[in-house]
Amino acid sequence: MTINEIRNLIDRSLFASIGYTDENGRQNIRRIFCVWHKGLGTHLISTNTSSSHVKNLLKSNNACLYFSDDASFEAVCLYGKAEVSTDRHYKELLWNDGDEKYYPNGIDDADYCVIVFTADSGRYYRYDGKADLSADEITEFDKECILENGYSKTNN
Amino acid sequence: MTINEIRNLIDRSLFASIGYTDENGRQNIRRIFCVWHKGLGTHLISTNTSSSHVKNLLKSNNACLYFSDDASFEAVCLYGKAEVSTDRHYKELLWNDGDEKYYPNGIDDADYCVIVFTADSGRYYRYDGKADLSADEITEFDKECILENGYSKTNN
Repeated sequence: MTINEIRNLIDRSLFASIGYTDENGRQNIRRIFCVWHKGLGTHLISTNTSSSHVKNLLKSNNACLYFSDDASFEAVCLYGKAEVSTDRHYKELLWNDGDEKYYPNGIDDADYCVIVFTADSGRYYRYDGKADLSADEITEFDKECILENGYSKTNN
Repeated sequence: MTINEIRNLIDRSLFASIGYTDENGRQNIRRIFCVWHKGLGTHLISTNTSSSHVKNLLKSNNACLYFSDDASFEAVCLYGKAEVSTDRHYKELLWNDGDEKYYPNGIDDADYCVIVFTADSGRYYRYDGKADLSADEITEFDKECILENGYSKTNN
C-alpha cells in the first residue's frame, strides 16, 4: 500500500478499533467512531469519560488504533498513545447535533471527553503485501495535513 | 443482550479482531477469519505459522477476541488465551478448497496452523446496555454446544 492508500483507508472509515490492556492485565478492544484525523499521526475520538476504556487509558495510555476494510482486505495498525483530553476546542470540533442524547449537559458535560491518539509507528496489511510505517514517514507525510473530518471529506 | 443474541453475533460474523501485546510491549490488533466456534468459549482460526501475531502469541498467549456489528451496534469482547495448535484434526476441519494458494504443501504445510482461542470471561456492548459475561455463564452455555462453522450455519 502507498501512504496515500493508507490515508484513504483511514479517511473513508467511520469506525476504528482501539486496543489496550486493562487494569487486570487483560487485552481489550473497543469499536469506536473515529472520523477526525490529522494525516496518519493524530486521531480524535469523542467518548464518555465514565467508560471503562477511558478509565483504563488514564492509567496506561499505551494503545493501538486499527482501521480495516473487510471487503478490500486492507488494514493498518497504528501504535502509540491514547490521551484523554477535555480541551474545549476539541470538544466543540467533535460535537454533533443530537449529541445531547449522550451528554445531556452539552459540550461542557463532565461525561464528555475526547481521546487524542498519537501514532509513533504503524504496520499495514493488504493481499499484496505488508510492511512497517516509520515515525519519520508519518511525520513527513503529516506536515502537509490539517485536522479534518476525513469521513465527511471522502463521502462528499 | 441475551446469551443467545451474543452467540448469534458471533455465529453470523465472518471476521473477528484479535488483540494482544507484542514483544515490544505494543498493543496490537489483527483482523482474522473466525467462523469455527464451540458456543462462546472456544474459537478456531486458521493462519500462517510465520505471521507476526502467531510469533507473539507463542511468547504470550494472553489475548482477546472481539466480534462486532457496526450496523446493529453490537459487540462482545472475549478475554482469554490464544494457543497455537498444529493438531491435524483441527487443520483438516478448517481446511477449505483453494487453501493451497496460502499453504502450497496442503494440510501438512509447516506454515499452516490453527489458533485455539479459549475465553474465560467477556463483556458485551449494545445500544441498550453492557455487562460482563462470567466464566460460569460461558461454561454452562457451552455444555449444549458442538464445534461447528457458525457462519455456514447462519447463512444457510
